[in-house]
Amino acid sequence: MTYERWERSTEWPLAGAALMFLAIYTWTVLTEPVGVGAQVAEHVVLAIWTLFAIDYVARLTLAQQRTRWFLFHLHELAIVALPVLRPLRLLRLLTLVSLLQRSVGGALRGRVVTYAVIGTLFLVFVAALAMLDAERHAPGANIQTFPDALWWAVATVTTVGYGDYTPTTATGRFIAVALMVAGIALLGVVTATLASWLVHKVAEQDDANQAVTQRQVAELTEQISALRAELASRATAPAPSQ
Amino acid sequence: MTYERWERSTEWPLAGAALMFLAIYTWTVLTEPVGVGAQVAEHVVLAIWTLFAIDYVARLTLAQQRTRWFLFHLHELAIVALPVLRPLRLLRLLTLVSLLQRSVGGALRGRVVTYAVIGTLFLVFVAALAMLDAERHAPGANIQTFPDALWWAVATVTTVGYGDYTPTTATGRFIAVALMVAGIALLGVVTATLASWLVHKVAEQDDANQAVTQRQVAELTEQISALRAELASRATAPAPSQ
Amino acid sequence: MTYERWERSTEWPLAGAALMFLAIYTWTVLTEPVGVGAQVAEHVVLAIWTLFAIDYVARLTLAQQRTRWFLFHLHELAIVALPVLRPLRLLRLLTLVSLLQRSVGGALRGRVVTYAVIGTLFLVFVAALAMLDAERHAPGANIQTFPDALWWAVATVTTVGYGDYTPTTATGRFIAVALMVAGIALLGVVTATLASWLVHKVAEQDDANQAVTQRQVAELTEQISALRAELASRATAPAPSQ
Amino acid sequence: MTYERWERSTEWPLAGAALMFLAIYTWTVLTEPVGVGAQVAEHVVLAIWTLFAIDYVARLTLAQQRTRWFLFHLHELAIVALPVLRPLRLLRLLTLVSLLQRSVGGALRGRVVTYAVIGTLFLVFVAALAMLDAERHAPGANIQTFPDALWWAVATVTTVGYGDYTPTTATGRFIAVALMVAGIALLGVVTATLASWLVHKVAEQDDANQAVTQRQVAELTEQISALRAELASRATAPAPSQ
Repeated sequence: MTYERWERSTEWPLAGAALMFLAIYTWTVLTEPVGVGAQVAEHVVLAIWTLFAIDYVARLTLAQQRTRWFLFHLHELAIVALPVLRPLRLLRLLTLVSLLQRSVGGALRGRVVTYAVIGTLFLVFVAALAMLDAERHAPGANIQTFPDALWWAVATVTTVGYGDYTPTTATGRFIAVALMVAGIALLGVVTATLASWLVHKVAEQDDANQAVTQRQVAELTEQISALRAELASRATAPAPSQ
Repeated sequence: MTYERWERSTEWPLAGAALMFLAIYTWTVLTEPVGVGAQVAEHVVLAIWTLFAIDYVARLTLAQQRTRWFLFHLHELAIVALPVLRPLRLLRLLTLVSLLQRSVGGALRGRVVTYAVIGTLFLVFVAALAMLDAERHAPGANIQTFPDALWWAVATVTTVGYGDYTPTTATGRFIAVALMVAGIALLGVVTATLASWLVHKVAEQDDANQAVTQRQVAELTEQISALRAELASRATAPAPSQ
Repeated sequence: MTYERWERSTEWPLAGAALMFLAIYTWTVLTEPVGVGAQVAEHVVLAIWTLFAIDYVARLTLAQQRTRWFLFHLHELAIVALPVLRPLRLLRLLTLVSLLQRSVGGALRGRVVTYAVIGTLFLVFVAALAMLDAERHAPGANIQTFPDALWWAVATVTTVGYGDYTPTTATGRFIAVALMVAGIALLGVVTATLASWLVHKVAEQDDANQAVTQRQVAELTEQISALRAELASRATAPAPSQ
Repeated sequence: MTYERWERSTEWPLAGAALMFLAIYTWTVLTEPVGVGAQVAEHVVLAIWTLFAIDYVARLTLAQQRTRWFLFHLHELAIVALPVLRPLRLLRLLTLVSLLQRSVGGALRGRVVTYAVIGTLFLVFVAALAMLDAERHAPGANIQTFPDALWWAVATVTTVGYGDYTPTTATGRFIAVALMVAGIALLGVVTATLASWLVHKVAEQDDANQAVTQRQVAELTEQISALRAELASRATAPAPSQ
């Protein structure tokens, strides 16, 4: 079993497990279940966590340069090893976006925009969930319902920042900072894609000029070939002309 | 009757109908008419809606690949089929912008900027109207007059977001999210246009260098032609020189 | 007297008049003078207004295509003809920035950045003055001192928008909208300049490749010339070799 | 001792001194020490200041064009000569970032991003410290703890600007303006880097086209050389063929 084969065969199962984790997390945060429901959710989350832990260990074992792999995947270790940090655990779900991304395919700009839009929608949803979970029972907090949390998340990721709802707990503020950084990245991606498109369209005219050069060079090559053929015919059969 | 011909001949009547809808919507939201006035407005809006519904059915019938057309125009179906969603119905008016756009013409960058500016002004106006309509009678809402709604809309679309006025109803927040997205797009368009202009200006110097290459190639072609002519004259009349 | 000559000879006097207007406006807003001081200020402002009115009429008279000039300079007519709109009158001072700009000179990117920075500083200062003038005596307004007005202006132009100070009058909000638009433009200029610089630096590598093509073409031209010279020498003196 | 040699040999000691200053400043602001601790801190800060003053005088003495150097380093004079302005003194620490930057190396885009990220993290930390120092004991101020100051700094640098915490003192607002400007620069760098990357990727296709031109020119040169060789062989040995 090679590293690449392991990755390819575990891709879809792990994405499914991440999706299930998202569903259970959403259900847990929104309904705050007690009794049997809460216990079942707890066990399924533990099972999913075990899957990710096995995947981490397997990949570490299969990696060709183990130390290098370990250093470049420290964030994965943190996500697997610290199951008490719920919001960080959810970052794992971002792998799903890149998976969706790959199946979409297409041109570079289209892919960048698709990735940014899906990733942002996903982040806003997860951040609103995590924020509600963190703030709901904090004294003095004003984000108390899921619609309010979603509203706050959208106002933050677009860098509008009304300030009518703001986190007050440390966890909530960490989530907020992640969303702000995502908002700057979103602005950057939208602007950069538009700029690249405009630059490309304007450059097409320059390309047309360049095509003229290419045609001229091609024409020149043809003339030279004709010249060589002519010289060759004179070199091999000079006598009859004299 | 072909699809293209239908589109061309219904363009201006539909734009007119959309403008009339905007006028009636503006008048209805700002004056909150009762009695006869309200009834007349209701009937005109119904007539305009019928026009758009006929246009939708006609284009669906005339389309060459009907299933494909249906899938790519699902948003138009939603706008036509759900007349209770007032703010969404107003999105139809954006077609007017692209119509204006076409008549302006001109270079790419100019057109992008014109589209962005007109589209943004239009969106701010319509969003302020829809926001006033949604929030005015909601308990605890603080957007109560049209000037306040306009002020809120401008502060949102520029992503400034003071937070002195914020929507509290679900409808109001959906409108706000649309404006925030438009704000990010606006920022992107302004920046991208400036970047494209700067990149182009700086690239003109490179183009000047490229022009040198082209001139050299042209000169070269001329020399080759002269060379061929010379060889040809020697080939046809070699005897007298010897 | 031609149009260009009039423009060149009135440039500096008008810039001086605009500067004096700014000084008097600043002094009037900050100290709210009464009695003789206020009357003197009033008269000087009237004299400056007369200068600008004369300049407008003179340029309209000297313009070659008078109707065209009139249509393209409608904003100047509004600024000259409506002296009661104090904040709009101050826009006239922006001409000073382009004057400073011209004397700075230099490369395109540097000039764009200089213009953006000076223009923004200037706009923030004038907007803070106009805002203080508009809001100070309005009931319920919270911008009451010049430092607060400056603080509000900076938070608005950077699109941060804390919302701790916000305008409440119609005049104040018009000023705020102008600053928000300037803020978007500022963001655009900063980003576009950086993007253009980065694109150019990366493109320099491509230019190096292009230089290789140019050198190859030059070398080719040289070879062709040598070839022609050789053929020419053989054509004029073929006999001795046989 | 030349200017360059002085700079190279004092680089690391001065960076160390700046780091120590940051540590002492952090400790002083967070714990507000009294008695012996405060006195020791005061003396170490004085020693560090002396180091920077010596460095300034030495570089001024060693500079080849002393007047020019003086004018281009006025900001350094202000930082050295005005030790009472604590926040400004901390700007000196930014030299550390460029030092770190240099040791990272790598491609242009990567270096720009590294610089922006490290510089922003650093600025947010120092601004939060300076803000806490300025606001803590001001009447009516609402930034009273370091976590609140950090939260305010992040919301400001991302231009989100909730407004739940805002500075009220003049010093605090100067720090805030510096952060807002940094926020605009950060947005610009992120967007510009993305735009440059996209433009470059799209341009690579055009480069491929250009490579075709280069190959054609190279091929052409080869043909011309063959032609010359052929002509040369005929010129030196024409007799046997006749």
